[in-house]
Amino acid sequence: MARPIDLLVGGGTLLTLDDRGRRFADGAVAVHGGRILEVGETRELAPRYLPARRIDARGGLILPGLVNAHTHAAMTLFRGLADDLPLERWLNDHIFPAEAALTEEQVYRGALLACAEMILSGTTTFCDMYLFEAAVARAAHEAGLRAVVGEVLFDFPSPHYGGIENGFAVTERLIDEWRGHPRVTVAVEPHSPYLCAPGLLVRAARLAARHGVPLVTHLAETRGEIGTIRERYGASPVEHLERLGVLGPGLLACHCVWVDEADIERLARAGVKIAHNAESNLKLASGVAPVPRMLAAGLCVGIGTDGAASNNDLDLLREMDTVAKIHKGTALDPAVMDAETVLGMATREGARALGLGELTGTLEPGKRADLIVVDTRRPHLVPLYQPASQLVYAARGSDVACTVVEGRVLMEGGRIETFDVEEAMAAVERLAVGIRGARRGRAGGAP
Amino acid sequence: MARPIDLLVGGGTLLTLDDRGRRFADGAVAVHGGRILEVGETRELAPRYLPARRIDARGGLILPGLVNAHTHAAMTLFRGLADDLPLERWLNDHIFPAEAALTEEQVYRGALLACAEMILSGTTTFCDMYLFEAAVARAAHEAGLRAVVGEVLFDFPSPHYGGIENGFAVTERLIDEWRGHPRVTVAVEPHSPYLCAPGLLVRAARLAARHGVPLVTHLAETRGEIGTIRERYGASPVEHLERLGVLGPGLLACHCVWVDEADIERLARAGVKIAHNAESNLKLASGVAPVPRMLAAGLCVGIGTDGAASNNDLDLLREMDTVAKIHKGTALDPAVMDAETVLGMATREGARALGLGELTGTLEPGKRADLIVVDTRRPHLVPLYQPASQLVYAARGSDVACTVVEGRVLMEGGRIETFDVEEAMAAVERLAVGIRGARRGRAGGAP
Repeated sequence: MARPIDLLVGGGTLLTLDDRGRRFADGAVAVHGGRILEVGETRELAPRYLPARRIDARGGLILPGLVNAHTHAAMTLFRGLADDLPLERWLNDHIFPAEAALTEEQVYRGALLACAEMILSGTTTFCDMYLFEAAVARAAHEAGLRAVVGEVLFDFPSPHYGGIENGFAVTERLIDEWRGHPRVTVAVEPHSPYLCAPGLLVRAARLAARHGVPLVTHLAETRGEIGTIRERYGASPVEHLERLGVLGPGLLACHCVWVDEADIERLARAGVKIAHNAESNLKLASGVAPVPRMLAAGLCVGIGTDGAASNNDLDLLREMDTVAKIHKGTALDPAVMDAETVLGMATREGARALGLGELTGTLEPGKRADLIVVDTRRPHLVPLYQPASQLVYAARGSDVACTVVEGRVLMEGGRIETFDVEEAMAAVERLAVGIRGARRGRAGGAP
Repeated sequence: MARPIDLLVGGGTLLTLDDRGRRFADGAVAVHGGRILEVGETRELAPRYLPARRIDARGGLILPGLVNAHTHAAMTLFRGLADDLPLERWLNDHIFPAEAALTEEQVYRGALLACAEMILSGTTTFCDMYLFEAAVARAAHEAGLRAVVGEVLFDFPSPHYGGIENGFAVTERLIDEWRGHPRVTVAVEPHSPYLCAPGLLVRAARLAARHGVPLVTHLAETRGEIGTIRERYGASPVEHLERLGVLGPGLLACHCVWVDEADIERLARAGVKIAHNAESNLKLASGVAPVPRMLAAGLCVGIGTDGAASNNDLDLLREMDTVAKIHKGTALDPAVMDAETVLGMATREGARALGLGELTGTLEPGKRADLIVVDTRRPHLVPLYQPASQLVYAARGSDVACTVVEGRVLMEGGRIETFDVEEAMAAVERLAVGIRGARRGRAGGAP
């Protein structure tokens, strides 16, 4: 007799992205209690289950949900507020002043809009760093996404928590409050070696280790950072963290644009995970991270969009395209970063980078049911010779037809089922009026 | 009394992209007989006209249609057939064998699918080079797009016309047949200095001059080409063309990745137009063209996608994003290639590059009515501080809500009105079965 289950997604080309690279030409995923029960041929699975809900993926690809390994979700508030500026002017004249006036409610609204964009474009997990991160956790919780969240910690007073003692208190409270949540987990997130004194970094690492949660930081993002850290500590940023004992398998290092062979060796030896943010690094003119060399060294590298103010979208399908191309073009080698590798980085490797490799990132029995369906019956996705090629080089976020997290359908056919998208957009549009006005006020020489 | 006209597009933020950069917060375009009658505020225009059709652009941006300055439309047939390979293996083992078996019907089908993709993603004009180009002209004619088409000419026998004498005959016939067509014009298109002997290049340039049509060629695309041309002719490819007397304001030079300061000076002095193909140049690992230096030298530079086999899409909104970012990231300067500049390249400058600057590329009275509406009421396009930033850094082809060419609505709300898209996709899917099979046959060691 057929077994009652929550959900059956079937009828599409199924890419498990598991270690064996298994595919099913007409595949299905059986889901119950938030987990994957079975994957296989639709004709074998369908008769054995009685699903409460069916997703028909005919003409589409079924694959693991995408993992955004680094973002600042609430920065949707500042999308396009200022572009094409030197980094210091962008930060000091536009972003920092805007952030100084932020409230928890604004962060919640910005993060919820980001959740809408991520759900619509096939992201099922994101790793976030920002101010008022409790509001980001709440947005992810309500939207139904999987998230790793962490309050940003640095030496100077935070517009949220004030002094760093409160920063650590906020972080510990977050860890306590979200312990046991099936989707939202907390990380300890010191901003970077240039905004965090050695004591802060060491304390953050110890706190993360004590709670068994990830440590997340920006690292070696710009050439300027290299000079600053060498001047202060006589070492490269990676070397500096190594000396402090902060490198380890629980560390997610975001960017790593300016790392040499010795740094890559240090990162690999310590088992550090990397978040690669190709588009943001280009847009802010930080440079191109040596990802092919990182992969050759055995490093685990996920893909992030960074915040919407430096990208300016959170579309991982587009980001994969850039990641696959930029390294070919700068290395003058068309064989580096092939489509399969990049698709793996945006799913399986991203999950591993966030310490969630046991839960998500591939479609395998026992894992949480985080998956998406990409509709390929569209002119720009025809003909379909190679699914990975199509996903990386031709698909875009709007081709995602269905997004499922923890077995729950968050979106089908472009309609988000967990919250009101129109209201989420309207709320940010209202906030943007004030943000634009404050900027004009400053520009106009207001006191 | 209100004047009867064909079309009024109104209610959106109107970007004319004219020399004065005029914008209207709530703007409208009045269209009649394929031409723009007037642009201005909706509240001023709307009462004075009685349009047969209205496009409501509320919540959107109205701007000139995008110009794809270089493509091989029919190569949609080979989208994703082979990727991540060294250029020579890609061409010799995959593309050239597939092209050797091409028929005019296949080119027509591939080009029609490309037209669907371009219309849906906001392109209104494209410049094409390929085999059986009469079929591309027919596809553009039927689809309603504006196109510059040209049969590719080279020294070796063509799978279409055989010897080069026939190539010139085909080109002259094309010019005769399409003379006077309002949208489809013909160019003379020698492939490149490395596949065309000096005599062919000179004859092609004279033919173009005699008919007053553009001359289109690939130029300085790869480092390998530089070596080849220097070995054969003792000059850079640009210098070689200069000596042949082929450089001039009627020449559209595609790629120009490997040009030095002296080459840029030669191109600028001669008034040559450039088609920049950032994504294809990255994917094929050709490199990054020095576009900021070209612009500084006063060159007119448009943007192309190149063919779908080396991109792998024809989405100019995505391409603009890459163009804006790649030069920042490689020059380590975030102020180069700002959003306004890149948007101008994809519209006004692209039209000028194709010799169509008097007809299209901006929204001005008297010009042909080639325009698009981009819907910004979507999570990834909220909030909207700067229209150009949103278009370049956040929008994608699927955000285009309406495409108008020569005053005719080709698409509204995702529905193409000029041909059957489902049939266009199905036809290419049928052809792809044979293309995939032929490839497997070769891979399996067929004689």
